[in-house]
Amino acid sequence: MHRSRLCSLIIDCHANDLGDAARFWSQALGRPVKAGTDTTQEKYIGLVTHDDEPVIELQKVEHPSRVHLDIESDDIEAEVRRLEALGARKVEAIQTWVVMEAPTGHRFCVVRPQRGGMGAHGNQWT
Amino acid sequence: MHRSRLCSLIIDCHANDLGDAARFWSQALGRPVKAGTDTTQEKYIGLVTHDDEPVIELQKVEHPSRVHLDIESDDIEAEVRRLEALGARKVEAIQTWVVMEAPTGHRFCVVRPQRGGMGAHGNQWT
Repeated sequence: MHRSRLCSLIIDCHANDLGDAARFWSQALGRPVKAGTDTTQEKYIGLVTHDDEPVIELQKVEHPSRVHLDIESDDIEAEVRRLEALGARKVEAIQTWVVMEAPTGHRFCVVRPQRGGMGAHGNQWT
Repeated sequence: MHRSRLCSLIIDCHANDLGDAARFWSQALGRPVKAGTDTTQEKYIGLVTHDDEPVIELQKVEHPSRVHLDIESDDIEAEVRRLEALGARKVEAIQTWVVMEAPTGHRFCVVRPQRGGMGAHGNQWT
């Protein structure tokens, strides 16, 4: 038995200055950049969202800009196997997460729980 | 004075069969396809999400698969002007919504409130 749910929107930005990108999205979505972020240096910049909202992060990337989804799970291996059985393929394991590709062509990641738990609406898989 | 917030994730699918795409994402995210959907015919297929989760819809598209965000607002014209002032550009008005492009290259839409209100965390702009 393991659990998972959609947890994050990652705004992948092909941008010279991720700080500029973060300032735009912060103001567009009305969510401040996380305090203490060095916006001139970071590969990742997080926005502050409410606990019942998705995590939102900007990531500096070399590929064209896009948005990707993260699914959090308390058992990444089991979740990857579940998603493979649905037709997704494993692309790459990076540090603590796994990059996958959906049958629809979308890349997404399976990550560890981002806020300690699964909130009120986590899925339970047996 | 108007209000807005991030409301929806639209999973744009370059797919022959949007029903197959919906079945994958429904199972991956653990959210059922909306009852009564004719998955063989639709350009849009919605998943059932909780009121405190983003709206999730699949859209059949001709461009490559991607994910785009929707911002809902009780005053679309004012919201478009606000986003233009932040550096976004208006791409196209379609029916009741406006397609925009962020300075980061991401396309997104400004739409009418999707669930009647703005929930607990809508932004208020003066």
